[in-house]
Amino acid sequence: MADIDIREVGPRDGLQIEAPLPVDARVRLIEALLDAGLHHIEVGSFVSPQAVPAMADTGAVVAALGPRAGVRMVALVPNRKGAELATDAGLTDLSVTVSASPAYNEKNVGMSILESIAQVAQIVSIGPASVDAVVSCAFGSPDEGDIAPTVVAALADRLLDAGATSLTYADTTGMATPRRVDDLLAETGPAVGLHFHETRGTGLVNAYAALLAGVRRFDTSIGGLGGSPFADGAAGNLATEDLVHLLDDLGRSTGVDLDRLLAASELAASLVGHSVPSRVAAAGPRLPLPSRSRLA
Amino acid sequence: MADIDIREVGPRDGLQIEAPLPVDARVRLIEALLDAGLHHIEVGSFVSPQAVPAMADTGAVVAALGPRAGVRMVALVPNRKGAELATDAGLTDLSVTVSASPAYNEKNVGMSILESIAQVAQIVSIGPASVDAVVSCAFGSPDEGDIAPTVVAALADRLLDAGATSLTYADTTGMATPRRVDDLLAETGPAVGLHFHETRGTGLVNAYAALLAGVRRFDTSIGGLGGSPFADGAAGNLATEDLVHLLDDLGRSTGVDLDRLLAASELAASLVGHSVPSRVAAAGPRLPLPSRSRLA
Repeated sequence: MADIDIREVGPRDGLQIEAPLPVDARVRLIEALLDAGLHHIEVGSFVSPQAVPAMADTGAVVAALGPRAGVRMVALVPNRKGAELATDAGLTDLSVTVSASPAYNEKNVGMSILESIAQVAQIVSIGPASVDAVVSCAFGSPDEGDIAPTVVAALADRLLDAGATSLTYADTTGMATPRRVDDLLAETGPAVGLHFHETRGTGLVNAYAALLAGVRRFDTSIGGLGGSPFADGAAGNLATEDLVHLLDDLGRSTGVDLDRLLAASELAASLVGHSVPSRVAAAGPRLPLPSRSRLA
Repeated sequence: MADIDIREVGPRDGLQIEAPLPVDARVRLIEALLDAGLHHIEVGSFVSPQAVPAMADTGAVVAALGPRAGVRMVALVPNRKGAELATDAGLTDLSVTVSASPAYNEKNVGMSILESIAQVAQIVSIGPASVDAVVSCAFGSPDEGDIAPTVVAALADRLLDAGATSLTYADTTGMATPRRVDDLLAETGPAVGLHFHETRGTGLVNAYAALLAGVRRFDTSIGGLGGSPFADGAAGNLATEDLVHLLDDLGRSTGVDLDRLLAASELAASLVGHSVPSRVAAAGPRLPLPSRSRLA
């Protein structure tokens, strides 16, 4: 049993801002991630293909993958209709994003925060196995600046009241810092997921601060792909390989094989057609042992 | 009085691998760094201009700057001759690098570690005000792999015996991790300087781990310029602006003004003719207040 639960969001958060990939390429990437030992994967979203063309055909991706024992496949859905499509595709673990920033929520999903909370209740009403509510801009936004941890925690309470089964706090625009991670966790406790970006190079240090505070669930993206299409300069999720590299050295188990993960990262780079931001992907692990397959 | 002592090494460690800049450009950069509030600066080195062309004419840089009250200007010297040249130029605060890796030391200065320790004694013998011994590859090297903290600390003791007045541990090839920082500091105590690289994206998290352990002195390079010319893929010192951005948010005083520092970073990028690796330089501070001069 892994000590740290890594939810790989590359196939959704990473790919959504890239040029659309064919279904078989998306399947190949997910297969490579599964092969690396990632068993909690956000495989796509059920959103408007006009709004996010790269996430069209997520149902076909899920169908091609088929059911996998011991693997938790998650779909991001914005509303009840998306949840129904995900359920039709066979997925019962859902995620939904609600922003702590009114302005960002309006830009991202065209709704007020209250309307988004109502959508969470609608999603819950169709009976999925789990609904993870992702609170975006949980560490501030360019529109509102800092957002107080008490305000973020109050929103989270509303989301739990609406039936969300877990919470993830996302640093959508790269404004989190170790101090602000500590401040938010003082309000929420450590039984949450955290989702960091490297916009200002703080993704890994924020994850480390959270680890010290007892957090055991993180969202990461293969290669560090991703970022928000609605937030300037926000590109770059915390890279899965950068976090696994750190956790391996700390002796924290993830169930992930770093060498296979780096192979998946190379595949991701070749599929999107550009290098990935991850520094571990670029430089290799700190100790490139002869036994590592990538050096063979 | 600043709580954290930042030694800016950009004019030496940052520029040494770049195409040589004229003396007046090096002086302009140092002036901009001083203007940002950095008052401990490695201004250059006195090494063979054949080996490191970009560090030729450091004496002329020092002469153009003149003496500055309250500013500590440091020169890197490899041996007694370099120390004499630095002293002739008016500098009495010196730094010298000795590697914990025999192979790296041979590549870097063409000497065994014992010969390098003897050079430190020679440098000390001419009577400088201070000699900071920088232990490179203090967290491992590609040649030897991990290097035990006890071995690193034993070398440090030899350097103090030779007359070094302070110690800095450098992660020359980006192999440090928070765990290994903790392990080394358990041997050395926190009254040391640390010098990190972003080779694997761990520079900032290592600095944070060191802060938590009580370390108050760091080497950083404006823009994250630099890295070792003798270590593949080791480019990228911890960027001064990335550390100051973190320290500001933690409420730790540095004496550095972040806006002026970002102006110095822009100058550095224009002088070297390429963008700098710093993510804060690219994305701007987490809260771009209207009062910030760079947005005016």
